[in-house]
Amino acid sequence: MTDGPGHGLPMTVPARGLPSAVRIHEVGPRDGLQNEQTVVPVEVKAEFVHRLAGAGLRTIEATSFVHPRWVPQLADAEELYPRLTGLDGIRLPVLVPNARGLDRALALGAGTVAVFGSATESFAKANLNRTVEESLAMFEPVVGRAKEANTEVRGYLSMCFGDPWEGPVALEQVVRVSRRLLDLGVDELSLGDTIGVATPGHVDALLHALGEEGVPPERLAVHFHDTYGQALANTLAALRHGVSTVDASAGGLGGCPYAKSATGNLATEDLVWMLHGLGIETGVDLGQLTATSVWMAERLGRPSPSRTVRALSHKE
Amino acid sequence: MTDGPGHGLPMTVPARGLPSAVRIHEVGPRDGLQNEQTVVPVEVKAEFVHRLAGAGLRTIEATSFVHPRWVPQLADAEELYPRLTGLDGIRLPVLVPNARGLDRALALGAGTVAVFGSATESFAKANLNRTVEESLAMFEPVVGRAKEANTEVRGYLSMCFGDPWEGPVALEQVVRVSRRLLDLGVDELSLGDTIGVATPGHVDALLHALGEEGVPPERLAVHFHDTYGQALANTLAALRHGVSTVDASAGGLGGCPYAKSATGNLATEDLVWMLHGLGIETGVDLGQLTATSVWMAERLGRPSPSRTVRALSHKE
Repeated sequence: MTDGPGHGLPMTVPARGLPSAVRIHEVGPRDGLQNEQTVVPVEVKAEFVHRLAGAGLRTIEATSFVHPRWVPQLADAEELYPRLTGLDGIRLPVLVPNARGLDRALALGAGTVAVFGSATESFAKANLNRTVEESLAMFEPVVGRAKEANTEVRGYLSMCFGDPWEGPVALEQVVRVSRRLLDLGVDELSLGDTIGVATPGHVDALLHALGEEGVPPERLAVHFHDTYGQALANTLAALRHGVSTVDASAGGLGGCPYAKSATGNLATEDLVWMLHGLGIETGVDLGQLTATSVWMAERLGRPSPSRTVRALSHKE
Repeated sequence: MTDGPGHGLPMTVPARGLPSAVRIHEVGPRDGLQNEQTVVPVEVKAEFVHRLAGAGLRTIEATSFVHPRWVPQLADAEELYPRLTGLDGIRLPVLVPNARGLDRALALGAGTVAVFGSATESFAKANLNRTVEESLAMFEPVVGRAKEANTEVRGYLSMCFGDPWEGPVALEQVVRVSRRLLDLGVDELSLGDTIGVATPGHVDALLHALGEEGVPPERLAVHFHDTYGQALANTLAALRHGVSTVDASAGGLGGCPYAKSATGNLATEDLVWMLHGLGIETGVDLGQLTATSVWMAERLGRPSPSRTVRALSHKE
């Protein structure tokens, strides 16, 4: 089960114009678990991160220093973070919603933090209870203090391709908020398709518009959700634009496929299958990663929604 | 539930270099149902085809005239086909494994038939109990007689991107068998990734190699399975080569996602979401199609594996 597909599949056939290596930003422990119904004990979370690192992932978003009232699933951040030892060379970003969250993260020695913004007013209001401008104003000192502390900062921008309240989101609006976040000093900006509605031409158009605005693909990451099955096709479009950091969640954690709110992160295994078929280096051992997701799925009491995990874990 | 996603999503953003319209070759009633465990009554099958037509599909592979011993799920072909009336302008191809199958199909007035070949010796042996050459020799009179009867012929070529026994399959081998099938006179050749292992660079390379051999994309269709979640990214690669006929199965019918043998056809709804986002015309009403797949899933007693069907059918 853990040896990958075997038989030399997928065949490695590179395509022109794609990066030679991709850095996978693994979000399972944070974006994945925060959307799961099951409460996961802190020692299981710690083991999950260690197993992911063992499978070759080098950037693993570990948890969130958000108020426990909002994300009870991650209320154990202070307990979890000190358990993540012996992970030399592994980046363990943590989400910080505000100055208080940054304080908590810095106190524990986090080397990378992430702030979470919205491209739309509706989601800024729903998620942050602020306008987009007010949220940027809140992030400014957070980013500034993190940089002073020599801490890397990732910016998330959600609802870049559509919003559940507003519907379509104008490219100009996404470009404008992206530019603001980058100007605040975030080192990397992750463009989120939070409700999974993007299609590849839309991805092309946004990355093109950002390029016109002087944003190089090296500062961008993409964060696709598989709600409508589009995540991997969209990733392919982003790779063609030179984006080489891709967010994914081991086993597709983060959203029940049967619920209305299904957010379904792109499964890291489905991504790795494609990247390895394309001859793009990831450092990930697909067999070990699949075994990790099967292990985690057992703890969550439901099968992984990743197609690759399902297919590989039923090999004899 | 049947009104599509609403809110003007997905946003339509065309990408350069893609076809302006795609003909979806719907395989749910044949390739889908032949792989389902549940026995579906003939009147349900007939209603399924009529509902698919009502949703705007114009090519619906209806059944297979294979010996009932091999595919008991489709043993009712003679009963089903005469029920498919009032479908003006809809093509209803049927699979014919051999001369006997062709006789049965022609007796019922089938306007399009399909033969099912293999790119690999192992699958030719397993599926047809013949070598590749022997199977081509068997198809020759079938194709010839179909053409004499003014019947269109589609050729399927399976295992084009990998084989469960042989592993990788050389491009040259796929090109050679493709050329032979086209030379026999098939009007259209559907390149099958039967076990779902292809990645986009591999698709690029095969279509390029076929182009070098003088095969225009107009004579090709692609048939991807979503076993490892790659089907839509692979479809995007094929569209970039000018292929404009894509096989898909309503609701992703045709393979239990939990079984080892999961063959998981690309779900028509996931395909339509991408194509409509890209501004590519299909003639399909996504809401009606989703409602049809939900209806069929109820008859099969299990949820649809299509991500789009799941997401849309849980909207209030």
